[in-house]
Amino acid sequence: MDVVKDILVGAARACGATIVDVAFHEFNPFGVSGVVVIAESHLSIHTWPEYRYAAVDIFTCGDVIKPEYAADYIASRFRCKNPSIVEMKRGLIPGATGKVPHKVSDPTGKIAQRVTQRVPDAAQELSLVH
Amino acid sequence: MDVVKDILVGAARACGATIVDVAFHEFNPFGVSGVVVIAESHLSIHTWPEYRYAAVDIFTCGDVIKPEYAADYIASRFRCKNPSIVEMKRGLIPGATGKVPHKVSDPTGKIAQRVTQRVPDAAQELSLVH
Repeated sequence: MDVVKDILVGAARACGATIVDVAFHEFNPFGVSGVVVIAESHLSIHTWPEYRYAAVDIFTCGDVIKPEYAADYIASRFRCKNPSIVEMKRGLIPGATGKVPHKVSDPTGKIAQRVTQRVPDAAQELSLVH
Repeated sequence: MDVVKDILVGAARACGATIVDVAFHEFNPFGVSGVVVIAESHLSIHTWPEYRYAAVDIFTCGDVIKPEYAADYIASRFRCKNPSIVEMKRGLIPGATGKVPHKVSDPTGKIAQRVTQRVPDAAQELSLVH
């Protein structure tokens, strides 16, 4: 469990995320489930060592975080030879302007800045098979 | 945050999952991120109240858990009028036999029972828009 946790926390750092919570659980006789909640959404992992398989979600929002860095980091640390990576755009997809309308009263512009950062725009599902 | 947590925990119960960990975080000025780790994988939620939007993942494995019960429960509790629900099959999809091969030494059959239960077979992504 410690190794899996270290890899997922490292992945969050690798893509520039801000970690806000970490929750991991080890199953008997084997298998780990864990989540790293980040300010930009979350990373999760479930491992089935008996199948040499792990399912990873990298859910990020904003333009700063690079979920592909996290995916590459995780595949590399697990020495995964056969990663299957699916990218899903989800949420309120901005139009051609790149602006998302919102109704927050925001005279200082500070909330808009934060809101823009938190617009959900990408979730990566990473399936690792050795 | 307490309401969002109550809804996600209630959803885990609604689909018959076994809760093993709960981690929630409230953002300033608003927005909640949270995860309920279950023995059968996890439920997660990220809310953008400024958009009246929430993104939910319901990741389950095995034949017992009914992720659609959790999806219905969450949509109902949030009074979501316009849910967008996507089901993704992921992991090692069993073939026509419904059996997944594994290599665990298991003279008592107890591990096989557990392994079968934990085979990943469905993840639901639920996007709620009011």
